[in-house]
Amino acid sequence: MLDKDKRILIVGLGLIGGSYALALKEKGYRIGAVTRSPETLRYALEQGMIDEGTTLPSADFVGGYDIVVFALYPHLLLEWLEQYQSLLRPGALLTDVTGVKGSVVYRVQKMLRSDLEFIGAHPMAGRELSGVQYADAGIFRGANYIVTPTAANTEAAIAICEELGRTLGFARISRLSPEKHDEMIGFLSQLTHCIAVSLMTCRDTEHLSAYTGDSFRDLTRIARINGDMWSELFLQNKEELLRQIDLFSGQLGRLRTAIENDDTDTLKEMMRLSTERRAFFDK
Amino acid sequence: MLDKDKRILIVGLGLIGGSYALALKEKGYRIGAVTRSPETLRYALEQGMIDEGTTLPSADFVGGYDIVVFALYPHLLLEWLEQYQSLLRPGALLTDVTGVKGSVVYRVQKMLRSDLEFIGAHPMAGRELSGVQYADAGIFRGANYIVTPTAANTEAAIAICEELGRTLGFARISRLSPEKHDEMIGFLSQLTHCIAVSLMTCRDTEHLSAYTGDSFRDLTRIARINGDMWSELFLQNKEELLRQIDLFSGQLGRLRTAIENDDTDTLKEMMRLSTERRAFFDK
Repeated sequence: MLDKDKRILIVGLGLIGGSYALALKEKGYRIGAVTRSPETLRYALEQGMIDEGTTLPSADFVGGYDIVVFALYPHLLLEWLEQYQSLLRPGALLTDVTGVKGSVVYRVQKMLRSDLEFIGAHPMAGRELSGVQYADAGIFRGANYIVTPTAANTEAAIAICEELGRTLGFARISRLSPEKHDEMIGFLSQLTHCIAVSLMTCRDTEHLSAYTGDSFRDLTRIARINGDMWSELFLQNKEELLRQIDLFSGQLGRLRTAIENDDTDTLKEMMRLSTERRAFFDK
Repeated sequence: MLDKDKRILIVGLGLIGGSYALALKEKGYRIGAVTRSPETLRYALEQGMIDEGTTLPSADFVGGYDIVVFALYPHLLLEWLEQYQSLLRPGALLTDVTGVKGSVVYRVQKMLRSDLEFIGAHPMAGRELSGVQYADAGIFRGANYIVTPTAANTEAAIAICEELGRTLGFARISRLSPEKHDEMIGFLSQLTHCIAVSLMTCRDTEHLSAYTGDSFRDLTRIARINGDMWSELFLQNKEELLRQIDLFSGQLGRLRTAIENDDTDTLKEMMRLSTERRAFFDK
């Protein structure tokens, strides 16, 4: 568990920032927040999700925190640091929750004051809803948390970042390079969202709900999607995501050819392999 | 509810046949079964899933039933009828549970004795497990049931077939032509299974479970698949399934192009549409 004396600041109180606040308050940490929205700030204070907060960062306020978690869209994280990093306390540890790493981590580390340290982290959890009012500490339980350190990071800071993941309740903490993270997430998360959106938009489906089984529902749950956030994440990981889409399309093409040619052997072999591999993902 | 005096025979005691037996026994019907496996027959009798059964159809046994449900792979259904339809009682109503209709219904109706009536039906329910030991009456609750009558069917028989669906506990009973059924199911069920199998086989994934969120798990749940059954269903609905795969691939290609061209407007518009359409499928 993270040292109880650590003061934690959350910048950005959306679904994930709010859920971090709830999970950390539950464990007894002192939590501050910065949000641009006065309504969000009032709501978070009223609900006891945070101890204090502001809509306008000042050195007095921001400088009081040891750990700063950025729960912002990638481009807003960069803007915030450009504008406000001078307010942070020397030695503060910065981390984030962004779903892409290669395009974020190196830029942040390059622009950062030399007496600050930034480590990327990706909490693999979410909901099909946005906003602080849907925050829920429970979304982290059983979920995966990936830390993406670079050569610029210290072992001590990496350890604190991993402790933060454990404190939040994540089941598994892993380390990946930003590049490897983006490849994995391109496949496991971004490709799956591309598939869901494509499936949900490829025909008029309003009248189809009387004919569905669970499979269509399962494959399209994530088609309910925050377009602002995901289009930014897709474009920030463009090259890798295009590779993953092509990999999948090639395999779907292989299956299509087998169907076209009545090639039962290939069909059964693909299904045998998919059944075998799926077993590793049962929770 | 189906008339309580109706005697119902289930031919084939796999997951679905067994679940029919359980659901109908719960409601107090007298249930007989034909299965090729002595172990399955013994198990079903021991568990009280059926009242009587045989591994070898005879006129004495089979001729005692008013309604016969075939829970067999498509080619076995045709073989069974060829060999044993002479044993059935005049006026018996025959139905099935097969996931394809166009290639089954017309052939069955064409080969059938003129004093028998066959109506196709598709219970949209299942599990990622096969075999009578996984039978579960609960899989029908909240699920959809599609009846696929043709010009060869009578209103009275269609009504009984629909009653059977209601008696089993299905939430929604619909009527579709065999052709429309195969188009819908090609899209909603077969395409989704093709996507799941392709996604699960397109790269080595054994080490990836530490990095997944729920989305990959959701999209690949049905990648645990009965290869014998699904390769037969795919090939029996080949033309329609190929059309649905191409429709989906075209839309995924559109999304890919938008990503490649940094076309945020198209990405957001597709996500807006997918979010709007997905709302119709929340249970």
